[in-house]
Amino acid sequence: MLRSKLLTAHFETLRRISKRLINDAQFKPPLGRLSVCESDQVVSLDYGNRLMHFPLVWLRDNCQCSQCFDPPTYSRIINWYNFDVHPKLQSIVWNDHVRKIFIKWEDNHESVFDLKWLEERDFSPKNQEQHLTRNYRPVRKPWSKENFFSIFHSFDYNDVVSTNEGLKNWLESLSVYGVAKITNAPKDEGVCRRVANRVGFIKKTHFGEEFIVKHKPGTTNRAYLSSELQLHTDLPYYEHKPGVNLLHCLEQSMSQGGKNLLIDAVYISNMMKEMYPQHYKLLKTVPVDWTEFGREDDETFHSIYRAPVFVVDDKDELIRVNHSTPQRGSHFTVPLGLVKPWYEAFDVFVKLMKAQAVEFKTQSGDILTFDNVRLVHGRNAYDDTESNVRYIVGAYLDWDLIFSRLRVLKLHSMKQ
Amino acid sequence: MLRSKLLTAHFETLRRISKRLINDAQFKPPLGRLSVCESDQVVSLDYGNRLMHFPLVWLRDNCQCSQCFDPPTYSRIINWYNFDVHPKLQSIVWNDHVRKIFIKWEDNHESVFDLKWLEERDFSPKNQEQHLTRNYRPVRKPWSKENFFSIFHSFDYNDVVSTNEGLKNWLESLSVYGVAKITNAPKDEGVCRRVANRVGFIKKTHFGEEFIVKHKPGTTNRAYLSSELQLHTDLPYYEHKPGVNLLHCLEQSMSQGGKNLLIDAVYISNMMKEMYPQHYKLLKTVPVDWTEFGREDDETFHSIYRAPVFVVDDKDELIRVNHSTPQRGSHFTVPLGLVKPWYEAFDVFVKLMKAQAVEFKTQSGDILTFDNVRLVHGRNAYDDTESNVRYIVGAYLDWDLIFSRLRVLKLHSMKQ
Repeated sequence: MLRSKLLTAHFETLRRISKRLINDAQFKPPLGRLSVCESDQVVSLDYGNRLMHFPLVWLRDNCQCSQCFDPPTYSRIINWYNFDVHPKLQSIVWNDHVRKIFIKWEDNHESVFDLKWLEERDFSPKNQEQHLTRNYRPVRKPWSKENFFSIFHSFDYNDVVSTNEGLKNWLESLSVYGVAKITNAPKDEGVCRRVANRVGFIKKTHFGEEFIVKHKPGTTNRAYLSSELQLHTDLPYYEHKPGVNLLHCLEQSMSQGGKNLLIDAVYISNMMKEMYPQHYKLLKTVPVDWTEFGREDDETFHSIYRAPVFVVDDKDELIRVNHSTPQRGSHFTVPLGLVKPWYEAFDVFVKLMKAQAVEFKTQSGDILTFDNVRLVHGRNAYDDTESNVRYIVGAYLDWDLIFSRLRVLKLHSMKQ
Repeated sequence: MLRSKLLTAHFETLRRISKRLINDAQFKPPLGRLSVCESDQVVSLDYGNRLMHFPLVWLRDNCQCSQCFDPPTYSRIINWYNFDVHPKLQSIVWNDHVRKIFIKWEDNHESVFDLKWLEERDFSPKNQEQHLTRNYRPVRKPWSKENFFSIFHSFDYNDVVSTNEGLKNWLESLSVYGVAKITNAPKDEGVCRRVANRVGFIKKTHFGEEFIVKHKPGTTNRAYLSSELQLHTDLPYYEHKPGVNLLHCLEQSMSQGGKNLLIDAVYISNMMKEMYPQHYKLLKTVPVDWTEFGREDDETFHSIYRAPVFVVDDKDELIRVNHSTPQRGSHFTVPLGLVKPWYEAFDVFVKLMKAQAVEFKTQSGDILTFDNVRLVHGRNAYDDTESNVRYIVGAYLDWDLIFSRLRVLKLHSMKQ
């Protein structure tokens, strides 16, 4: 849709031109061959050693004429109430010289399809896979404790906030590995917001937009204590939980503690799929009542979201991990017989994570960024002193905005 | 968790009291009977003609003592690395007079569970269903064109913004039917924000927080034209699409058009499940590339989300509907053989919706609120005149915040 071009000439004019060109080139063999399979209602185009297939109904649905497609809004404007899902051809012609397919439908409507537009949308599995990898989402690469430090890349703050290339590189690394670090950030509280605004905007939660992680006795939020934060994901009790954490370190603890812990749940779920298939099955099917009850800024909230630990898609690939000991509700609304087996499976999961957790400490000026939908994180206990108060400012970003920004940046760098 | 009470006395003191009470009441038959099934590791409590079951591991996991549970954060604080998923009993006692179970575990740890707390968490299917309906999410009631006007309720703006009861009633109706109207709102642009702030806050998208729906030639967004808006859901190209639309009518068109169209996709999907099972199966399994490319406030965005028309849960119940003719991408990355059957299924879906669409017109001062995850909506064309310019201010809300607010309001009204 994006790279489709406005038709540069009216259909009739084009046909006249193409007729003349065909006459001029009558001794050259045709470059493209067109065929129509009547039973499947599929058009096949063989061009440049590439055989492409396009269903007739899809071609009619994606007619690029000004009655069917509106370039200013990049939108299909067909009225679907009048649409015939069994469109019939009057004629179909491939023209080598303008590299277009010309169709006249039974109802006299005419459509023209450009080779480049067709190539991008060819229904062959290989082309579709390439398209998805390039334009939908980068392919995730799982990592283990052993190779973490080879995939944990650093990006300079000034590059990220000032250059498109720097921004793209950070977001690509974050998409592929679920974790990346931004370094050399200034030590002010507006840094997370500036980074988020480069992508889109902060994902707001009932904790607000930016949140300050500092030891705060008497809080209803365990993250605001200096004690250990066991492995968890943030806000598992939201159906739309935050996509990415930005944790900007303004001051790090000089005590032994305050280290970050990270685990790639894609790696863990793949491991369990292979080694503990029964446990894996329980963790992806038994829903848990992720629950939070508390107060923030004089507002009471009571969030519950029921979902398994591993949420998987129809290809059995992890699309979301949920985990938090304090926020696993005491209500466990599943059949009695599943409870004991579930705890056994959960125990294996927690112990595998313990074995796979990487530990490292960010420095003042670092922004640790990681995927809250895919990774599990924690922090060990630390001690503040009068002259050393650990001080982190955090904010969240949503993947909807990250992927959109990444597509626009890739397009921008392709054009250059 | 919420209604759990702080232990009012130390375990030993309680045991002493209970012993004395047992002696005082030695001639009365016990009210509760406790048994333990060794093979299943399940505790059963028969109390007041109600037989309740609790797995041992779950009891240990939910111990309410101050080492295991932290009342200020309403949180489990057990360190899971030390947790034994096969806990063994030293002793277990039910005490009729204090109505508590007293457990001493093999490792000498002691737990006390209150009857009320246990009753709320009983693993019987009936109790769990009641709990989910009351505390998780209200049960959705599907509606058809025939009964729409009997379920489409109005709520006074002042009640909604000024009283907890008014707010609760509106949110309950919206949750159950997916649609409700707020009437008598003032005619200023801050109304949607005030309503959203009563619940939580506005869900921001790349269109901003509030959006103005007024005829705006040359836009990249079809919603800002006065022509027909075919049936659709908003932002199907977001993984986290907005949960609820608030559409505040400041001025309605005096032309024939400008009517809202609404359809309950739960009703349509149930209908298709029954009448067109093959089509239904295609619509719930074949992913569509929902796509948007455009500019807003000098920012380019390129959103894509791949999902079927009907997203269903493991009980085959609709959890999200996606539909939008302009935003159904021209890339259709599915196996060739599925394309024609999918279009046939999609055509049935669109035609069923056409037959089931209710039409009505909001008045100046109305706020139409509806579930964008469950309902499909549209608007027919209208004509502005110099003295009559249709003027709608819209904003979105997320279900995470709505359900949280509803739980808090219900608790509040139970306490009164």
